Amino acid sequence: MELTAQIIANHVGGEVVGNPDVKVKSVAKIEQGKPGNICFFANPKYEKYVYTCQASVLLLNRDYELQQPIAATIIRVPNAYEAVALVLALMQSMKSSRRSGWRLRRNTVSWSARVGKGCYIGEYAWVGKKARIGKNTQIYPSCYIGDRVQIGENCILYPGVRIYADCKIGDNVIIHANAVIGSDGFGFAPKEDGTYQKIPQTGIVVIGDNCEIGANTVVDRATMGETVVESGVKLDNLVQIAHNAVIGSNTVIAALCGVAGSTKIGKNCVFGGQSGVAGHLVIADRTSLAAQTGVIGNVRKPGTALMGTPAIELKNYMRSYAIFKNSDNK
Amino acid sequence: MELTAQIIANHVGGEVVGNPDVKVKSVAKIEQGKPGNICFFANPKYEKYVYTCQASVLLLNRDYELQQPIAATIIRVPNAYEAVALVLALMQSMKSSRRSGWRLRRNTVSWSARVGKGCYIGEYAWVGKKARIGKNTQIYPSCYIGDRVQIGENCILYPGVRIYADCKIGDNVIIHANAVIGSDGFGFAPKEDGTYQKIPQTGIVVIGDNCEIGANTVVDRATMGETVVESGVKLDNLVQIAHNAVIGSNTVIAALCGVAGSTKIGKNCVFGGQSGVAGHLVIADRTSLAAQTGVIGNVRKPGTALMGTPAIELKNYMRSYAIFKNSDNK
Amino acid sequence: MELTAQIIANHVGGEVVGNPDVKVKSVAKIEQGKPGNICFFANPKYEKYVYTCQASVLLLNRDYELQQPIAATIIRVPNAYEAVALVLALMQSMKSSRRSGWRLRRNTVSWSARVGKGCYIGEYAWVGKKARIGKNTQIYPSCYIGDRVQIGENCILYPGVRIYADCKIGDNVIIHANAVIGSDGFGFAPKEDGTYQKIPQTGIVVIGDNCEIGANTVVDRATMGETVVESGVKLDNLVQIAHNAVIGSNTVIAALCGVAGSTKIGKNCVFGGQSGVAGHLVIADRTSLAAQTGVIGNVRKPGTALMGTPAIELKNYMRSYAIFKNSDNK
Repeated sequence: MELTAQIIANHVGGEVVGNPDVKVKSVAKIEQGKPGNICFFANPKYEKYVYTCQASVLLLNRDYELQQPIAATIIRVPNAYEAVALVLALMQSMKSSRRSGWRLRRNTVSWSARVGKGCYIGEYAWVGKKARIGKNTQIYPSCYIGDRVQIGENCILYPGVRIYADCKIGDNVIIHANAVIGSDGFGFAPKEDGTYQKIPQTGIVVIGDNCEIGANTVVDRATMGETVVESGVKLDNLVQIAHNAVIGSNTVIAALCGVAGSTKIGKNCVFGGQSGVAGHLVIADRTSLAAQTGVIGNVRKPGTALMGTPAIELKNYMRSYAIFKNSDNK
Repeated sequence: MELTAQIIANHVGGEVVGNPDVKVKSVAKIEQGKPGNICFFANPKYEKYVYTCQASVLLLNRDYELQQPIAATIIRVPNAYEAVALVLALMQSMKSSRRSGWRLRRNTVSWSARVGKGCYIGEYAWVGKKARIGKNTQIYPSCYIGDRVQIGENCILYPGVRIYADCKIGDNVIIHANAVIGSDGFGFAPKEDGTYQKIPQTGIVVIGDNCEIGANTVVDRATMGETVVESGVKLDNLVQIAHNAVIGSNTVIAALCGVAGSTKIGKNCVFGGQSGVAGHLVIADRTSLAAQTGVIGNVRKPGTALMGTPAIELKNYMRSYAIFKNSDNK
Repeated sequence: MELTAQIIANHVGGEVVGNPDVKVKSVAKIEQGKPGNICFFANPKYEKYVYTCQASVLLLNRDYELQQPIAATIIRVPNAYEAVALVLALMQSMKSSRRSGWRLRRNTVSWSARVGKGCYIGEYAWVGKKARIGKNTQIYPSCYIGDRVQIGENCILYPGVRIYADCKIGDNVIIHANAVIGSDGFGFAPKEDGTYQKIPQTGIVVIGDNCEIGANTVVDRATMGETVVESGVKLDNLVQIAHNAVIGSNTVIAALCGVAGSTKIGKNCVFGGQSGVAGHLVIADRTSLAAQTGVIGNVRKPGTALMGTPAIELKNYMRSYAIFKNSDNK
């Protein structure tokens, strides 16, 4: 499998500078590029490699000014990071590992479940009563799809995903191994004797289209109504989304974050790893949290950048922390 | 399925104010209540909805004073949050999804295992030698029950729960999907060459009655002796309990918390999300940790509220943090 | 099963002080030692028990000076903690629970997979095309071994471990239940309309020899190239290792830690629980992080001890924090 610089440029909407007929076989990181590779430059930390990289083709942002000529053929694009994603997807599609086909005999799919055309259902997967699975969806071995669960088209559920009864998953959703969707919310009423009364969790989880859910991540079902993960949301591994939370569309949440119950996160937010948001809050669109930030109040202004526990504005935190760490020198 | 206000009041030990014959079909959140719903008011944040809620019936604390009359039938109770738990449980029991029955043919249950009456053992579950499972316990598909494991009566193990050999689970315990009980504690002796010698983890985990263990939570087995989760403990999702720890009865631990090895947590503690306690400590009863708190010393006084890393008294932390965050204005 | 003090001393390279013929049956914690037990003293917190312990044999560091005589037979060793690990391993090997044997009929092992002699492959495990499993490796029930995965000799994969296609695992590796190796890295290119383009994750994970990976831990595959966990690394439960990270040999990472993408961690580091390291950093050998530390810059000096978010030198943090917590008294 080889692709010319021109074919790639056409695919990503870029412009070739240099030999358009040079061929590449694979994508490599810029610090490891060799002849036959295509590399990309997006993160300024790696700028020095632009001038030493041995790759045959280099993807560069249109507005990046070269400090000196380079030997590689260049493809100029609006966004090199987005372009490399397209190149990788093109190469992956050329050697597709798409799974399809399943034999009812070896699996346990309820007679009342409906499975669309082109689906793959792996060994030891279990599909409950009246579940519905849209066409071309791939369910890997050992998944559990509860009764009446609805899953859209073109989804991928990797091995060991558990979806409790009645939850709804949109189209083009990827759920990684051992993630759990629809487990009981953490709701208990304290009793006078110090013990707790379990509050039945009778709601569901609704996940929109084009979401990706990381390995071992958990989204709890609502006490009543719905826990909602809107379209385009990306949850990394080991994330906790509590009952009745709402995660706004295209919000990105890194590993080991937690969102507590009934909190409504806005759209296009970005949460750094191990950050958390307390319960019953409203967080504005485009809020960004530095890693390990802990939010305990509403965030009203869109685009706010926060850090610290309790969270304050990022710049305020960094300035205060500079004073804090020098305080022992006085 | 409809219930009158009077039937509900009788069930929760409350008093009807208004029409006792009005019927409700389902429970809703107070901000979403419509005719046919029963709602509850417990969290002061939601007070405004008391006066706009369209629900047919409203559960109110006995001591809450209405600021103006409302149209709904009221049920006055000592604790509205506890009462709604009872209502939800009543409604859930009326449409029970309890599973029962299993066929030995399709599963792998060791011949020397004993399974009580009324149990459900799902497809692809595995039950080891001399394991004992109490009556009416439900084991969902793909669970793993190791050799000699003992599980009590009326438990629910959701799909993918893994219980290593020799561990003991009490009665009425709920364990959510993909939780792991009895994995090796994290014990290694450093050697002179910089590598580590694994310390065999030969103990077990003992979980008391009426516990709930969240999805993807892990409780490690003891190096020697027992890791203990006492009766009534509630662990949220993605919690880590290390080897030889003891969690006192009715303690509640939110998601992404960690308790390190050999630490003894008291009874009726409440830990906020992402908090942690270092190893070999003793934490008094009724200790509460704010989210993301890190405890590195013993807590001797029952009822202490802590925050920060290292943890200090909550009020102390909040006052100091107020000074910290204003320090950049000087 | 009984062992004399002399046999144990020979096994651990120690010297008997007292009766070499006294017999012990099991290892116990020093605070719980009874006749018939062997105990050890390593952590100074437990010193008082040296003089009250009823155990028959006590492992003591060679350089520990007794404050008063004790009744137990003593075995003097260079490192009591390492010695007890050897004793436990000896006792465990005498009552081995090693599993072996499998029947092709009941499992799903691809015809093109190669499984070495002496392996155990549990029920409901799935082994993909051209996978290779070294001799004497134990794969517990419900594991998933993707296509072309390579696993070395003498490994143990506990129930529910998921290894995505093409990943490579060394010899003598232990992976605990429900851990996930090789899930997609969290890589998305932002598009102008606010949505994200998934960047295909085409690399693999390579895990060296003698590693231990905790329950529900996740190691993501590289975008391109490899995510590397070098030999001798120990990862606790619920740890996140992101795409293209490198974890240097013999580094120990406690529960709920996260290492972000493309970061290179040195050798023999020790990370406390819930700590995290941001992406694209280089961390020197022997770096130690206090629990809940957050590192956002390179660490160049080997042996540095850090604390806080952002991480600063441990002593600096502790002194500054002492001022912080007293600042409200002024």
